[in-house]
Amino acid sequence: MDEVIADTTTGMVNWYKENFGGDINYTKMLAGQSLVKGFPEEHQAIVRQQLYEPGFFRNLPVMKHSIEVLKEMNKRYELFIVSAATEFPNSLKEKFDWLQEHFPFVTWHQVVLCGTKKLMHGDFMIDDHARHLHSFNGKTYLFSAPHNLNEKHFERINDWKHAAELFLQ
Amino acid sequence: MDEVIADTTTGMVNWYKENFGGDINYTKMLAGQSLVKGFPEEHQAIVRQQLYEPGFFRNLPVMKHSIEVLKEMNKRYELFIVSAATEFPNSLKEKFDWLQEHFPFVTWHQVVLCGTKKLMHGDFMIDDHARHLHSFNGKTYLFSAPHNLNEKHFERINDWKHAAELFLQ
Repeated sequence: MDEVIADTTTGMVNWYKENFGGDINYTKMLAGQSLVKGFPEEHQAIVRQQLYEPGFFRNLPVMKHSIEVLKEMNKRYELFIVSAATEFPNSLKEKFDWLQEHFPFVTWHQVVLCGTKKLMHGDFMIDDHARHLHSFNGKTYLFSAPHNLNEKHFERINDWKHAAELFLQ
Repeated sequence: MDEVIADTTTGMVNWYKENFGGDINYTKMLAGQSLVKGFPEEHQAIVRQQLYEPGFFRNLPVMKHSIEVLKEMNKRYELFIVSAATEFPNSLKEKFDWLQEHFPFVTWHQVVLCGTKKLMHGDFMIDDHARHLHSFNGKTYLFSAPHNLNEKHFERINDWKHAAELFLQ
């Protein structure tokens, strides 16, 4: 979900701007960094704390074109949304409710909220974290996000238009 | 979780007795039935509704000997708790909090809350539902519960003392 269909970076940057203002070039700061470490060092603890706060995950923007492409993929594939969520217990119901709002064609049967993704197997996995792709048995795609720009070991999906070219042609 | 480490039947029977009283032999009624269908027909809708209510899963009793046996299994195996939970969105955080309270040695990395369990693979799966065991790649064990007494297709684990004999000898 995060950084693939939910725009966690934009959500965090928006929250940061509202609370700390400033003219900083966040995109440049975040490039190649973890979401938290891309922010100024003196604010990293409070940025990280935000991930545990009620409401943060519920209100994230949706990644561009993800709804239309996943709606079509859902007709052609056995689709699952697998999200690393248990580290942030407040996110569990929020992520589910967010999916129901924005991706109502994804039923409760198709949702997995987990810690590690080591148990998952299947034909394809699209993820923004190399650590989740490493243990997967099927074909893997790294979904490009600011934090993974320096990762060299996986075939990439740049955005959801690109995903449509790969999965819906 | 339900009917394996969380005693969902006892939780529901206790709730039913508090609300409807009576001297009915619930164990006999529930044998071979789904949790809901074991109750009198006129109350099945309200019993089922209980599964969606806040607090139901958070307050379930723990299955006898499950803590001590899983604590030891957690030292010897790579253990995961995989629970069908997304059908009941209020249960998501409640199940996680319940685990933290009763099984604090299970970290957030080891928890999976899902709809179907079709994505899971591993060496062993212990579950009370045949439908979850059917799709598993490894060795399967049916954990005996009132609702599955008529199921004939799987090797059984009768209780956690029995699990200890199989996994900790």
